[in-house]
Order: sequence, then C-alpha cells, then structure tokens
Amino acid sequence: MPAPLFSSADETETAFYDALSRADIEALMALWAEDEEIICIHPGSVRLVGHATIRASFEAIFERGSVHIQPVQLHSSRNMMTAVHNIIEEVHRSAEMTQDIHILTTNVYVKTAVGWRIVLHHASVAPGRAPNELFRASMLH
Amino acid sequence: MPAPLFSSADETETAFYDALSRADIEALMALWAEDEEIICIHPGSVRLVGHATIRASFEAIFERGSVHIQPVQLHSSRNMMTAVHNIIEEVHRSAEMTQDIHILTTNVYVKTAVGWRIVLHHASVAPGRAPNELFRASMLH
Repeated sequence: MPAPLFSSADETETAFYDALSRADIEALMALWAEDEEIICIHPGSVRLVGHATIRASFEAIFERGSVHIQPVQLHSSRNMMTAVHNIIEEVHRSAEMTQDIHILTTNVYVKTAVGWRIVLHHASVAPGRAPNELFRASMLH
Repeated sequence: MPAPLFSSADETETAFYDALSRADIEALMALWAEDEEIICIHPGSVRLVGHATIRASFEAIFERGSVHIQPVQLHSSRNMMTAVHNIIEEVHRSAEMTQDIHILTTNVYVKTAVGWRIVLHHASVAPGRAPNELFRASMLH
C-alpha cells in the first residue's frame, strides 16, 4: 500500500501522533522525508540521524507499547514549502502524569513531491507542569 | 544603525553566536524575525514566545556574562525560504566542560524582506559527551 499523500503539515502531524498511539512503525516511518539528513531527538536522548537509526529507536519504544500523546498549545510559522510547529506534548501515561515535567517538541515539515513530510522532530523535557498558556486559537472564541 | 541584512542562514547563525560571545543584546535581538510567534527554548527551560520574553531571558543570561559557543556537527535541510539547522553546541565554560552532557540545538531560519532571520531556537541537554560523529563536511577532505 503506498503511503498516503498528506496535503498539509497539520495532516502529517495528526498521522504522526496517530501512528505513535497505534505503535505502527510502517505508518510512522512513511511520514518522514526521503532524505538521510532527517533528525530525531527523543526527550533527554542523543541526536539520531537518518531513517535506519530513527526507525530502530521507535521500534525500541514500541516494544514497551504504544505512546499516547496529545499535542497542545501549538505555535507555528509557515510558508509555501515549510511548516515549523512547536507544541507541548501531553503524554497520557498515568506514571508520567504525576511527574512535575512536561515535553516541548519542535516538528518541522517540508512540502515534497509526495506530500508534507517530517524532516525534524526535537523533543525535550521542561520543568514544572505545562503552563496553561493563553494562545491565539483560544482567544478567537 | 540598521540591522545588517544577512544573505544566508549561515551568516545569521554566525552572527547569533557572535552576539552571544559579546553579550550584545541589541545585535542578538535584531537577528530574530519580526513575528510574535518566534520561539526560544533554553536548555532545560520552559518555552518562551515573542520578542519581549525572549529578550528578557537573554538579558538575564548576559547578567552572568557572555556565552562562548562553538556550533559543530551541523545537519541541515533547506529550501529557498527556510533553513533548518541541527547542531551540537560546544559551550566554552570551564565548569561545563567537565560535565558529562552536551547541548543539542535546532535553529530555524526564514528568508524575509530584510534577510535571513531566526524563527526558532530550541536547545536541550543530551547525556554523555558529544559524539565524535563522522559527517559529510569531514568526509570531503
């Protein structure tokens, strides 16, 4: 089955967190750009470069089960070719929810001939609970 | 004095680390895009959004002195409008050099009417010493 052709970075991002929630390694890896310079940094971990290394890291994560993340409080900048998303990841694992940390993630998407793909996923740990930040989307209501 | 007009992301990145090394807040802030969605994440810290908040954070850093960083082991992806740099930051402070950590940073630059500007700086801590990674630039020699 060919990989779906996502027409926006938002669709690709939704598919990314969906693949994580289903521990679907094939769906997950099909979302990355066909470029050996793709970068993945898991929270508190070293930098991973290229498809083989990144795939192996997610396979190791999925051995412990799927990962349920709700991306919230998006800030983005975009142009015709690139979208830069910075989000707070709400990780739905009961153990993690009690910790006094939150995860900040930068996801960068580029428009390719086969739709919007991920070129960079950089996640890191921040202290304290996620701030309940007022942001533009909520101010529209 | 008007801000210099940088003709590439590389030039803007050089100017960013130069401004840090001189604790020059005006030069540093002139490198950011004129957009209130700009994002800065210092290692281990919360997300900062917008010029005023980011400026205040660097002013607080500069009160403790300038910051000497050598960006190394660049991985990048770019198109006509955007450049995504992922680097390892070598921080030249004697105390830090003895620690068993390194800093991973994603810098995103966009081409604007007034040259290439920063829209996102996301730095985080990784365990262990910086890997002595073979990368393309070194393989050219």
